[in-house]
Amino acid sequence: MILEAAVLNVRSGAEQTFEEAFRAASPLIAATPGYISHQLQRCLDTKGRYLLLVQWETLEAHTINFRQSANFQQWKQQLHHFYDPFPVVEHYESLVEFSHNGN
Amino acid sequence: MILEAAVLNVRSGAEQTFEEAFRAASPLIAATPGYISHQLQRCLDTKGRYLLLVQWETLEAHTINFRQSANFQQWKQQLHHFYDPFPVVEHYESLVEFSHNGN
Repeated sequence: MILEAAVLNVRSGAEQTFEEAFRAASPLIAATPGYISHQLQRCLDTKGRYLLLVQWETLEAHTINFRQSANFQQWKQQLHHFYDPFPVVEHYESLVEFSHNGN
Repeated sequence: MILEAAVLNVRSGAEQTFEEAFRAASPLIAATPGYISHQLQRCLDTKGRYLLLVQWETLEAHTINFRQSANFQQWKQQLHHFYDPFPVVEHYESLVEFSHNGN
């Protein structure tokens, strides 16, 4: 399982429109083969900042199945104009998972 | 529920020692009142980069219960010397959660 993570900085004043656009675009990414789940988190410390986290079955589910899809063209069109600067997207693998009741 | 997120950049060559130290230090944060869970993710794109994600019941569980604890002094001593530069820690609240089967 792969975690895609990106800190998104949205143009000042466009936060609410972005949030609505993100909700509307969510089915586009969720339709991808190898997609598991995603979430958008809103930053409490910095206005206009969000954290996008996407769980994929494999790296290629993101880099090929999604990024080379027609749905990604729509996703770009609907969301990319909100970002300033354009986000750095990175991929992670889980190393440690720990919860209240121990490892 | 609050998500604490920090991108950690570890000094070159110290990655394995850091990973072991992080595992060893995990019970220190997990003992905090209001702590739910945490994970350490290792970046596939950039060597030495990690993503720390911690779920807290409230913002104060992190900023007061943990940061003002004796455990945090130990946590700092065991982990902070690995980071270069020192990480920016931010807090997020969930806005959108979406999975394979819809919202």
